Amino acid sequence: MAMEIERKFLVVGDAWRSLAIGVAYRQGYLLSNKHLTVRVRMAGDTGYLTIKGATDGISRTEFEYAIPANDAAELLDTLCERPLIEKVRYRIPWQGLVWEVDEFAGANQGLVIAEVELSDPEQLVSLPAWIGKEVSYDPRYYNAQLAKHPYSEWKDQD
Amino acid sequence: MAMEIERKFLVVGDAWRSLAIGVAYRQGYLLSNKHLTVRVRMAGDTGYLTIKGATDGISRTEFEYAIPANDAAELLDTLCERPLIEKVRYRIPWQGLVWEVDEFAGANQGLVIAEVELSDPEQLVSLPAWIGKEVSYDPRYYNAQLAKHPYSEWKDQD
Repeated sequence: MAMEIERKFLVVGDAWRSLAIGVAYRQGYLLSNKHLTVRVRMAGDTGYLTIKGATDGISRTEFEYAIPANDAAELLDTLCERPLIEKVRYRIPWQGLVWEVDEFAGANQGLVIAEVELSDPEQLVSLPAWIGKEVSYDPRYYNAQLAKHPYSEWKDQD
Repeated sequence: MAMEIERKFLVVGDAWRSLAIGVAYRQGYLLSNKHLTVRVRMAGDTGYLTIKGATDGISRTEFEYAIPANDAAELLDTLCERPLIEKVRYRIPWQGLVWEVDEFAGANQGLVIAEVELSDPEQLVSLPAWIGKEVSYDPRYYNAQLAKHPYSEWKDQD
């Protein structure tokens, strides 16, 4: 078990795009509610099964396990809720931290989110110029929520 | 992914008890419904995370992964539905197959079930003398159901 502490932002412009090579992600949820999510992910050719507990501010417990890629693909294709989340993830090192920029596709096309993982909720973070509005506390931007209410269906897109 | 094919029976008497040494199991469910279960199990000192698809007769898809015992204990203690399933499992070889006899405790005290895993749904099975009524098709005896409606609360115990 790990504790995940994460801040999340919208992204401005395209300057981030040249800073990393993207990896295709496909993920879905066996279960997602306020208290618990069980996620299946294919990140490139690697499968993962991840359990996350309830969110407490920007922190939550996380249990993650690598699983065979064939299993992940079958779980996504047969048992996960629809629609799946499709995105390309860019990992961008910046002043000692790694920013993960997710460019969504499919039902969430048009959405680009940057996340940074912290070791402490109070940690000071230097923001790259392409970082926009913070959305850490807006549950609509949780990936589990984007699977239930995709960005393409929002009436008030930021 | 594997296909699990299993027949399940009530147990008569105590003759099975001397045939194996039991291992303590503690398990719970992150999710259980008609289509899907996500189970956490401690079997002795080993942790497992298991995903099972919908039941089709006596068959269902199963994905099982070993996980660290500390993770399994924490998932059971913090995220699984209540009550947990507590039982002692006895693995008894018999005429080329292995029977698993589960003697339940806690909220399911008094219940003893024997399961045998098959490679084919049509496979002929020789039944030991201590095997009673078949309950393969009775959903009350699913462990996930025993977590929701424990045996101690049944009005019509067999």
